Amino acid sequence: MSPHRIGVTEVVLRDGHQSLLATRMATEDMVAACEDIDQAGYWSVECWGGATFDACIRYLNEDPWERLRRFRALLPNSKLQMLLRGQNLLGYRHYEDHVVDKFVEKSADNGMDIFRVFDALNDPRNMARAMAAVRRTGKHAQGTICYTISPLHTVEGYVKLAGQLLDMGAESLCLKDMAALLQPQPAYDIIRGIKERYGDVHIAVHCHSTSGVTMVALMKAIEAGADSVDTSISSLSLGPGHNPTESLVEMLEGTGYDTGLDMDRLIQIRDHFARIRPKYEAFESSVIVDPDILRTQIPGGMLSNLESQLKAQGAGDKVREVMDEVPEVKAAAGHPPLVTPTSQIVGTQAVFNVLMGPYKRLTGEFADLMLGYYGETIGPRDPEVQEIARAQAKKDPITVRPADLLEPEWDRLVGEAAKLRGVNGSDEDVLTYALFPTVAPGFFETRAAGPKSVAKTESQLAAEREAKARGVALTGPVKYKVSLGPGRTHTVQVEPA
Amino acid sequence: MSPHRIGVTEVVLRDGHQSLLATRMATEDMVAACEDIDQAGYWSVECWGGATFDACIRYLNEDPWERLRRFRALLPNSKLQMLLRGQNLLGYRHYEDHVVDKFVEKSADNGMDIFRVFDALNDPRNMARAMAAVRRTGKHAQGTICYTISPLHTVEGYVKLAGQLLDMGAESLCLKDMAALLQPQPAYDIIRGIKERYGDVHIAVHCHSTSGVTMVALMKAIEAGADSVDTSISSLSLGPGHNPTESLVEMLEGTGYDTGLDMDRLIQIRDHFARIRPKYEAFESSVIVDPDILRTQIPGGMLSNLESQLKAQGAGDKVREVMDEVPEVKAAAGHPPLVTPTSQIVGTQAVFNVLMGPYKRLTGEFADLMLGYYGETIGPRDPEVQEIARAQAKKDPITVRPADLLEPEWDRLVGEAAKLRGVNGSDEDVLTYALFPTVAPGFFETRAAGPKSVAKTESQLAAEREAKARGVALTGPVKYKVSLGPGRTHTVQVEPA
Repeated sequence: MSPHRIGVTEVVLRDGHQSLLATRMATEDMVAACEDIDQAGYWSVECWGGATFDACIRYLNEDPWERLRRFRALLPNSKLQMLLRGQNLLGYRHYEDHVVDKFVEKSADNGMDIFRVFDALNDPRNMARAMAAVRRTGKHAQGTICYTISPLHTVEGYVKLAGQLLDMGAESLCLKDMAALLQPQPAYDIIRGIKERYGDVHIAVHCHSTSGVTMVALMKAIEAGADSVDTSISSLSLGPGHNPTESLVEMLEGTGYDTGLDMDRLIQIRDHFARIRPKYEAFESSVIVDPDILRTQIPGGMLSNLESQLKAQGAGDKVREVMDEVPEVKAAAGHPPLVTPTSQIVGTQAVFNVLMGPYKRLTGEFADLMLGYYGETIGPRDPEVQEIARAQAKKDPITVRPADLLEPEWDRLVGEAAKLRGVNGSDEDVLTYALFPTVAPGFFETRAAGPKSVAKTESQLAAEREAKARGVALTGPVKYKVSLGPGRTHTVQVEPA
Repeated sequence: MSPHRIGVTEVVLRDGHQSLLATRMATEDMVAACEDIDQAGYWSVECWGGATFDACIRYLNEDPWERLRRFRALLPNSKLQMLLRGQNLLGYRHYEDHVVDKFVEKSADNGMDIFRVFDALNDPRNMARAMAAVRRTGKHAQGTICYTISPLHTVEGYVKLAGQLLDMGAESLCLKDMAALLQPQPAYDIIRGIKERYGDVHIAVHCHSTSGVTMVALMKAIEAGADSVDTSISSLSLGPGHNPTESLVEMLEGTGYDTGLDMDRLIQIRDHFARIRPKYEAFESSVIVDPDILRTQIPGGMLSNLESQLKAQGAGDKVREVMDEVPEVKAAAGHPPLVTPTSQIVGTQAVFNVLMGPYKRLTGEFADLMLGYYGETIGPRDPEVQEIARAQAKKDPITVRPADLLEPEWDRLVGEAAKLRGVNGSDEDVLTYALFPTVAPGFFETRAAGPKSVAKTESQLAAEREAKARGVALTGPVKYKVSLGPGRTHTVQVEPA
């Protein structure tokens, strides 16, 4: 019997460096790996999303659309995949439907194949338009279930949501565990439930590895019938990132499943990113493993945000109280998954509650969440808190799809973009402006200067290695004030000779 | 139905810091965690073995027997566990049987409960005496199967070896994967095979995590009937170490298995070692994950040894050739598992073969391995290479148990030890001398001065943190000789201003 083929989505070009190197990797540092990636036998190659788009224009002076076109040229045999925040596209607000259509159309034009569409609240209405737009382009629309844990989230609930996504025309499904909360048994039960209810739909599983448990969740998901899984090449894996691609290959040996991946290619890819990683050391996360997120259900990135918010308020000793408050706020808001942007909204409100008293002051975003402006949550929202939100925000709660309240905005965006210096008149530029209106103008002005890497150069790395080998602490010139006695002070410059 | 209880052996006090911090952790840095460890609900606490014994007297000026007695006092409710290299005890040669008896007896006297007995060649004759000695003390004798991969190692072979260990009186069994080679399917098949053949014998599974696959192997082993597994608290886990204890707890949630561990205690233990770990940063391994060991079957530690041997010979470019030679040498030697000491013996011979030509020169240890002086290997040894070994070592091959050729040596050891300065006349001191005859004399001389930690102090760490926060490379005053010209040399002291 030939083994059952499990597809693999390589995420190193998007979520891998996003999770481990703060999304700072320049296209130039990916190019040399692309031929091996293209030939390794992946099911798809995730290479584009909100954070990489943002980082391109904010830090790297790279045009994200140009990056996409380069991937298309460098990966001719691969299915390119992106992560799309439903009605939010790659930004932080809802966009009017025609902007959604336009974005999907231009992404497809520039080479995107598979659109993984999700919504932070799992509200299908926030995904519907983007999914329909993808289908119109003839590309692959993958419907996404954001996984979280709460008293209201059940296997049956996830299975039902899968059905809603299929009804909406999803060509495949993704169980997305962005916070490393997925344990083996629920992974098995959810995948099994979906397969039993809906037959042979393709299901992908996306996990982060922070909790140290999700490689096992992938195994159980595969046993339950998952068709593809997301991994990142080992040299950019683990910690807040993903399970290592090569380990997945080895995991399945002898099991009756296999990935069909070419291990020699994987080793080449691994070696490439092992060489690149040290250049971005300054952006490395220090987390190795944190099983505690399963108990607190506060994702690691959210916890460090809370800590710095509290320290900035001189209230660093309140971390414990805020951690206890987070589940309360989450429950009051109807148990949204904690993922961008809900993790920031819930976390900041928890800080406000601890510092100023429960719901004495709401953030504008939390009021919007309570009033339905982000969409529907799985549970009912606390009516008292909702009333506070209504009074403070001076807005009524809504039950319609939030984007239904938006006026057409494409023509306005075109007009505003046209006035910016350095804009090239393309729809792509209008979309860049629409998604990041405060960052895009600066980018357009400097775009002509070309990419500006934030990585260390090879010669800097070599100097650091040499300095280390020689036991010298300094790697560059440092100025010191040297006092030899009263009135005999010199400023000297010291560097390794 | 109440969940099926899975025992957990916490290895942080032995293999955890051995694998991640070069065995350098001082007893003082473990003491504060012991109450939580004792109360957490572990099946056993591994806390003693060859490398920790060695490090105590070589680096830390600690009496390893005193460390054992402190553990006994600090962990009154726990089963203390050690790793014992069969007839080698904690040393690198075979000891005569009465020394074996004496060592086991004194270990039991000082508080040891569970003796995990193994042999690098899986030769039961090298484990028999130690197992019998443990049984005479009334303590727990655990028979060990060293796991490796070769054309001759089969599930059926491991199952048979399990039977030999049980016949020898093993009260439980351990499947020991010291090189992170255990994949999920063989883990399942071996455990299942043993349970089906021999009924309800307790089986422990020990894995390292280097390959990124073994957490899944633990899951499959548990599904196949494993009774206990080894893990290390998360703050000293992963990389060349072990799977994280808390992750194991979370892995089993909802599966019908549970560990019974107290998560609040685990968090305390985690926080303790998270505070301690930075003090030993200088000894940290840099490996995070290395799935390639499953392909090369060369353990990570062995590879770095080979690389430094080759560099020392000015032959750093020969690494690939040596890696290709290792499997050849391993096959010629009858496919021994690659673990201390066979990994060093096979590796060094591979280096010799590449640099000087195949078997032009043998190491004494490799000749001994070829001639049976380490015991029986699973496969036949290459007769031509054996003939070279015979000619060069001027010794005939043996088929008897190696220790059968040894003369009684206890009285001689007592006599030699008695002449050393600082010896206290105890059998424990004689055993320390017997195990490490070159290191022990120096230790006895300095023992009275008490433990000498190699960790950074709290104030050093605080200074480093402060320096880092201020972006200064120097952390303390450094003296420089500054030459401004002929006759104008000053010695200046520089420190962060």
